[in-house]
Amino acid sequence: RRRAMGRAMGLAGLLVGLCLVSAVLVSTSLRHGAPRTQPAPEPAAWELAWDPVPEDSLWPLPQELRTSRRQLRLVPARFQLVHGAGSSAGPGCGLLQDAFRRYYEYMFGQSRRGKRGRRPLGAPAEPELSQLQVVIESREPGCDSYPHLASSEAYHLTVAEPVAILKAVEVWGALRGLETFSQLVHENDYGSFLVNESEIDDFPRFAHRGILLDTSRHYLPLKSILTNLDAMAFNKFNVLHWHIVDDQSFPYQSAYFPELSDKGAYSYNHIYTPTDVHLVIEYARLRGIRVIPEFDTPGHTQSWGKGQKDLLTPCYNGEQPTGSFGPVNPILNTTYDFMTKFFKEISSVFPDAYIHLGGDEVDFDCWKSNPEVNEFMKKQGFGTDYAKLESYYIQKILDIVSSYNKGYMVWQEVFDNKAQLKPDTVVEVWMENNYAHELSSVTGAGFTAILAAPWYLDYISYGQDWKKYYSVEPLDFPGSEKQKKLLIGGEACLWGEFVDATNLTPRLWPRASAVGERLWSSSNVTDLQDAYKRLTNHRCRML
Amino acid sequence: RRRAMGRAMGLAGLLVGLCLVSAVLVSTSLRHGAPRTQPAPEPAAWELAWDPVPEDSLWPLPQELRTSRRQLRLVPARFQLVHGAGSSAGPGCGLLQDAFRRYYEYMFGQSRRGKRGRRPLGAPAEPELSQLQVVIESREPGCDSYPHLASSEAYHLTVAEPVAILKAVEVWGALRGLETFSQLVHENDYGSFLVNESEIDDFPRFAHRGILLDTSRHYLPLKSILTNLDAMAFNKFNVLHWHIVDDQSFPYQSAYFPELSDKGAYSYNHIYTPTDVHLVIEYARLRGIRVIPEFDTPGHTQSWGKGQKDLLTPCYNGEQPTGSFGPVNPILNTTYDFMTKFFKEISSVFPDAYIHLGGDEVDFDCWKSNPEVNEFMKKQGFGTDYAKLESYYIQKILDIVSSYNKGYMVWQEVFDNKAQLKPDTVVEVWMENNYAHELSSVTGAGFTAILAAPWYLDYISYGQDWKKYYSVEPLDFPGSEKQKKLLIGGEACLWGEFVDATNLTPRLWPRASAVGERLWSSSNVTDLQDAYKRLTNHRCRML
Repeated sequence: RRRAMGRAMGLAGLLVGLCLVSAVLVSTSLRHGAPRTQPAPEPAAWELAWDPVPEDSLWPLPQELRTSRRQLRLVPARFQLVHGAGSSAGPGCGLLQDAFRRYYEYMFGQSRRGKRGRRPLGAPAEPELSQLQVVIESREPGCDSYPHLASSEAYHLTVAEPVAILKAVEVWGALRGLETFSQLVHENDYGSFLVNESEIDDFPRFAHRGILLDTSRHYLPLKSILTNLDAMAFNKFNVLHWHIVDDQSFPYQSAYFPELSDKGAYSYNHIYTPTDVHLVIEYARLRGIRVIPEFDTPGHTQSWGKGQKDLLTPCYNGEQPTGSFGPVNPILNTTYDFMTKFFKEISSVFPDAYIHLGGDEVDFDCWKSNPEVNEFMKKQGFGTDYAKLESYYIQKILDIVSSYNKGYMVWQEVFDNKAQLKPDTVVEVWMENNYAHELSSVTGAGFTAILAAPWYLDYISYGQDWKKYYSVEPLDFPGSEKQKKLLIGGEACLWGEFVDATNLTPRLWPRASAVGERLWSSSNVTDLQDAYKRLTNHRCRML
Repeated sequence: RRRAMGRAMGLAGLLVGLCLVSAVLVSTSLRHGAPRTQPAPEPAAWELAWDPVPEDSLWPLPQELRTSRRQLRLVPARFQLVHGAGSSAGPGCGLLQDAFRRYYEYMFGQSRRGKRGRRPLGAPAEPELSQLQVVIESREPGCDSYPHLASSEAYHLTVAEPVAILKAVEVWGALRGLETFSQLVHENDYGSFLVNESEIDDFPRFAHRGILLDTSRHYLPLKSILTNLDAMAFNKFNVLHWHIVDDQSFPYQSAYFPELSDKGAYSYNHIYTPTDVHLVIEYARLRGIRVIPEFDTPGHTQSWGKGQKDLLTPCYNGEQPTGSFGPVNPILNTTYDFMTKFFKEISSVFPDAYIHLGGDEVDFDCWKSNPEVNEFMKKQGFGTDYAKLESYYIQKILDIVSSYNKGYMVWQEVFDNKAQLKPDTVVEVWMENNYAHELSSVTGAGFTAILAAPWYLDYISYGQDWKKYYSVEPLDFPGSEKQKKLLIGGEACLWGEFVDATNLTPRLWPRASAVGERLWSSSNVTDLQDAYKRLTNHRCRML
């Protein structure tokens, strides 16, 4: 009786224990309060035979979940992840093969491969689950393609004796379902791997669920980026917004313009070679994650100026150049020649249908100081409205990128300044101040929007700030049903002023997990206490 | 000419580069702003032949420093750290032998052992520095002893051709001088190790320079504690205030009362065995760091109650016990029997002359609810003043600990509540609100004080908060010269609610370095811009 209770309470104890054993309990922002200070209530008799419910450990919570207390046992030496009958994907599908191996390891671990799940003499044997069969239903499973905005990430998972079945239209849904299945599997006190009989219907609430990493303020080594992609997959994120260059440094190694990184990177080592970039894209693809690079212009470009002569606007003091430079020079033909060639390369290096073109925080002072710019303004009839000059520049860049059949994302200022945008443009709302109103304007004008404003995770504060991120309701802005549909997702942004490889992971995770659930799960999943419990377990698992 | 300039500017570039190569640039709270965005001014001709001044890299800044631009070369294959003539310490001094090996590695690195310092053909050869001779002047060098409050950490360092000489009264000063010497040595662009001719006279401004780690809210694996001791040595801290147990868990494994950790730790693994504790103490000793354990009573003791029956006060609701427990029960003889035995063990396990007895944040509600406690109050004539009961308890604990010839530290409430304190008691001031006034009261009453209030580093915020910690002037409180002398130092506290092995190091360092310099260097070392420059280099070196 006591022993059974010990077992029933074991999962929570075990998770805390395991998590602690890995030298890693609670996080940046999750309080591991007083799990032992309150005496646990004596469990009722019917509870004793059962482990805690499987929902305790799912993150983000699936859209629909029916679960039973009946448990099945997985024996690592026998359990298989396989392609199911009727699947359009087979052993030739490298993406799934890779995922099968990865999730097998997550569930059972390298060292447990031979484990046969011994249990104490006399304990009843749970029925065995021998396989997870994965069935891709579309004729085009997507094994060799890249995920995109319209990809299906829906899946249906049935865990029942003797086999579990995971159905998805495309491989992207299968990846999400594999993550969920792995979260259902848990180890009990006797080293048995168990899973509750369950049925899950799941799909994302929003199609664009991104993490922004900034590799300009601080260089991030490749390994940090890949680790972050793993964490993203654990949280069903599907977009890496790679803010790759900025004022501070230019680590992207361009084939056409190698001087940009030769002179603009922190050093010859602090660059992303074409091989590095390709590796990031492929590693992301295998996890169903898009890579959208951002090449932010005309502001935030100081580092570009080092390797590309005459690209930036010379600033003046009266009639004298000061030797300093401002934003990209919008009045020279050579600027557009350069951008045409540069974005041709970017369009071919990055397979995603979108490129982020930035357009935020353009400082007009340098343009104002420059006599040639002012003459140009006069000629164009812009008066003294430098936002018009900015739009003139942006318009040309948008047209260049469009000509390569790419869509573009832009920061909200580009919309605010009334550039002529293609209908499929994605406008990213980042200004904290009254972002609901901005969402209303952007979608009211018929544009697609994503929300970043409440999720600037580089801003840290003491305590459990994940609750703040979690409690955001993205659709809580004034607008019609049609407008609401135009909000296609959001991004958690980790700007790099105070972030490098030494603190990236503990600063971003599990805080970003809060955003992950908000963007994936149903809008009514808002219980903070329930989320805390699941997030604690999820964190231990991620570690 | 251009090449020489490249070399002259090389050190800064190299440090940034190396630091970045180690995948670790700037920190939690140091902004690595725009080192390349402002064009560097063309250096004057006389600057070209010289590397940057050595002060650029010293942290904390020595009390007196005279330095020359003349550089000496260290050849790793030949350079030696040795005992100098007339030293009272020799090869039998394990502490120094260990330190010699450690600092050799810090300066030259494992992989460079064979490096002969090749330089480009035709470049002039710097004269060679062949040895650092360490001379301990006291007849009792302290090799096998423990550092204590009155230990001498002063040293005198002369770097000149052909040998450098480091003189110190005791080994503790030699350790500080070795750290400083290693900070003077730098590698130039050609892989040569150089040091400027210098003379340094140095000693700490305050005798007690501590870091508080909390291993109760989250368990910290041994490795994290040892790594932190290394970082402390880099910053000339000399006290580890080990807040080892608290409400949340009791990881200290007691020989007399093993049930305390058996039942009070997070798990059987999350404990510090006698071997672990001994290892921490010895690792600290070798770095000139005292280990002061804190066993906080009568509050903050929930975890004690699990393994020690009847130690805590039962709380009541009217006439019924609620099943919950409050602070240590101060009215039972068994309490003092237990404490007598427990602190006998602690006094023998921890060699330091001080034990921290806590005494903070005692919640009176449970005592108030308990009928037997109230009867006791009446009998003692305490009326309804529970602070008197608290003092009654504390007084008995102080007497117990005194009987083992230990000094004690206490949190400020113990002083505020007017317990009878031994004259050598150290009162730790932690309440942020008007701490200058509290320092005034404590020292006015003739007690020794240390300051923690402005240095609670677990409170995080966005940006460079190190400046806030750096700008504190500890002696800025009303009081006589005699009172000022009673403030013997301070502590940077990292409480563990949101800290574990995953984020300890980047959260504490280099923010705590700001406190380190404030407590070591002269009071007039307050230039934030200069500190920023040195701290940036120091961080790279620590990494």
